[in-house]
Amino acid sequence: MVLKGNCVIAQSGGPTPVINNSLYGLIEEAWKKEEIAALYGALYGITGLLKERLIDLKKEDIAVLKGLRYTPGAALGSCRHRLKAEEYPRLLEIFKRHNIRYFFYIGGNDSMDTVYKINRLAQEEGYEMRVVGVPKTIDNDLPGTDHCPGYGSAAKYIASVVRETGLDLKGMLSQNRVTLLETMGRNTGWLAAAAMLAKRSPEEAPHLIYLPERPFNIDKFLSDVKVVYQEYGYAYVVVAEGLKDINGNYIVAEESKDVFGHRQLGSGLAAYLKNAIEGSLPVKARYIVPSTAQRSSMLYASRTDAEEAYLVGKEAVSLACQGLSGIMVTLEREKGSPYLCRVGYIDVAQVANQEKSVPLEWITPEGNFLTRDFIEYALPLIQGEIQVPFAGGLPDYAKLNVERK
Amino acid sequence: MVLKGNCVIAQSGGPTPVINNSLYGLIEEAWKKEEIAALYGALYGITGLLKERLIDLKKEDIAVLKGLRYTPGAALGSCRHRLKAEEYPRLLEIFKRHNIRYFFYIGGNDSMDTVYKINRLAQEEGYEMRVVGVPKTIDNDLPGTDHCPGYGSAAKYIASVVRETGLDLKGMLSQNRVTLLETMGRNTGWLAAAAMLAKRSPEEAPHLIYLPERPFNIDKFLSDVKVVYQEYGYAYVVVAEGLKDINGNYIVAEESKDVFGHRQLGSGLAAYLKNAIEGSLPVKARYIVPSTAQRSSMLYASRTDAEEAYLVGKEAVSLACQGLSGIMVTLEREKGSPYLCRVGYIDVAQVANQEKSVPLEWITPEGNFLTRDFIEYALPLIQGEIQVPFAGGLPDYAKLNVERK
Repeated sequence: MVLKGNCVIAQSGGPTPVINNSLYGLIEEAWKKEEIAALYGALYGITGLLKERLIDLKKEDIAVLKGLRYTPGAALGSCRHRLKAEEYPRLLEIFKRHNIRYFFYIGGNDSMDTVYKINRLAQEEGYEMRVVGVPKTIDNDLPGTDHCPGYGSAAKYIASVVRETGLDLKGMLSQNRVTLLETMGRNTGWLAAAAMLAKRSPEEAPHLIYLPERPFNIDKFLSDVKVVYQEYGYAYVVVAEGLKDINGNYIVAEESKDVFGHRQLGSGLAAYLKNAIEGSLPVKARYIVPSTAQRSSMLYASRTDAEEAYLVGKEAVSLACQGLSGIMVTLEREKGSPYLCRVGYIDVAQVANQEKSVPLEWITPEGNFLTRDFIEYALPLIQGEIQVPFAGGLPDYAKLNVERK
Repeated sequence: MVLKGNCVIAQSGGPTPVINNSLYGLIEEAWKKEEIAALYGALYGITGLLKERLIDLKKEDIAVLKGLRYTPGAALGSCRHRLKAEEYPRLLEIFKRHNIRYFFYIGGNDSMDTVYKINRLAQEEGYEMRVVGVPKTIDNDLPGTDHCPGYGSAAKYIASVVRETGLDLKGMLSQNRVTLLETMGRNTGWLAAAAMLAKRSPEEAPHLIYLPERPFNIDKFLSDVKVVYQEYGYAYVVVAEGLKDINGNYIVAEESKDVFGHRQLGSGLAAYLKNAIEGSLPVKARYIVPSTAQRSSMLYASRTDAEEAYLVGKEAVSLACQGLSGIMVTLEREKGSPYLCRVGYIDVAQVANQEKSVPLEWITPEGNFLTRDFIEYALPLIQGEIQVPFAGGLPDYAKLNVERK
């Protein structure tokens, strides 16, 4: 049953290097569809939609749109915003006024909650529309999909940086003989685990990896570091920002919470552990906190990831035009090798506000490293590189009209 | 006057992405010289030399040696070590035993002190040898040379990461509306200044840059951040690790000192400023601490820099074979454009333990940004990229025999 109308695409949550690949896939596919007339981008996610900050994507230069495939950051702008009850009527009014019948939201767990609510709202109000979530998160914590677009690129970044800074550490006899790298990932350890991909021999970095999936014990940690340091004369340690103690409390987190009730992470865990190491061992430690660089580096992005991000965007449009709504597009991996992945979908209610953790059986009994299972899972996701054009010595990224004024 | 004998090459101080380009240039040129017989690499700088940890570089695979041109980290191993009086006789004994007549030390300020001392030692003891320093430091703080091999690549890394994480910041409406990036650079601001290269418009990152060359005042800093935040709704701030107050005291540094008497930096400045911002403005800040990633990322390395690093290595051998000793190779820039740079040399006594700062007239009167002069200086240094081979999704770096066991 063909539903004619206009379309809005929006981006939400933390950007990934390939979030604009999904945007491009959505635009390309929606442009082709006869039932979709106007093709809008909402600036800054749902917050821009509420303010009717819509741009006409068909007025963009085709070359610029293609450039989105190698441009990090959220090209339309993104947000963290939990829909308030009083905003629902406003939202529906905007959909109606612009005859918006297709809404695509590229985002993570929290954004899927928004997709779920908007779809339910439209149903309750008898306004026919198709609302589809497009998965995106470097954290890789969305359930219902083998992995999340964005993860492969951030994983490749983490593994590459560990390899490079591991060479730096190994090659440099100084007081600084312990390197700590703190990854993002909120309550899951997918990103920290990715560091393991850098390792080819026992002596190579990383030596220790700690994930939030297992309770963190500082004494065990210090004893682990000591063992490695005594063995090799140096130690490379990777920690996930969301490490928790046996009682489920973050080792280091801020008091304040974001709009979704999440405590702010990424502020001080590495420094805390550095001090603990220096207080316990006769060695200096230094820390690397890549922070948002791990989700915005295009030079370390994975072509496999970019391609999949593009495909889930295209598939979202196909599924919506087939009449589906209230779903999230997924990636379904075939068993065995070679690596093969297809697109599928899942009821977004099963995804919203859920977190998928690293399976406990993939973590070694000692709780400080991963098993081969993780490599089999993650290695295919980091394959291939992306050609980034340079101008004047720096990456030359695409800019939509709204950016160029 | 031809001096026949063997040769030792060693690397010292913090690695750079292109430190092995200098190593390759030295090897390639020394290999050609009839007066140079054995070609040794000392492992871990002067400390390895003192332990006679020498490897025969002519036994390395040519393909591996060529691979040094895209391999970060110190391939021979590096160190920080201040020669003690009692080590001098030992050193001379080793030189004599192995008939070492050529010693090339790739390093920064502290290493040039070692070059100076070894040259003086040999002269005093009447042992004829040629001792030449090959400049290397991402800090760019060596006097006597227009710029230092290693700087261009780290500058390109900083500018690229600021551009990428600047896109991330701009594109993401959340509580985190201030990004702080802390660069290395010890007492000089060359690396922090490089962030400016990312900027093409007033709104683009970075908005504020603070260098150790100007006294840092926290109240002025907070007032600057506030102005930017009010103008754009976000602020991107770059700080050099070595910021000092009006009395010349580091804003944040550890009590302990390294062997050269330098206080340990890179530990907590960004966190301190984040807290100051959050205590003063209604906004959250996050920080990026690239640490050793800024000196080991080959994907962001500059081809110009790599080429110059290679050339200073070759030139060191040429000058030594011409009879020069106790010198450091330099880069001399021609005035005007296009950019042209030749190799030269300087008496190492003029370099040892000295620091070259960013000229004060290149810093804006407000003390929070750079003038166009800096761009004219730095932009040519970041031109061109290096092709890094990948295998299995990750950079595939070269390994000398000693690494491969």
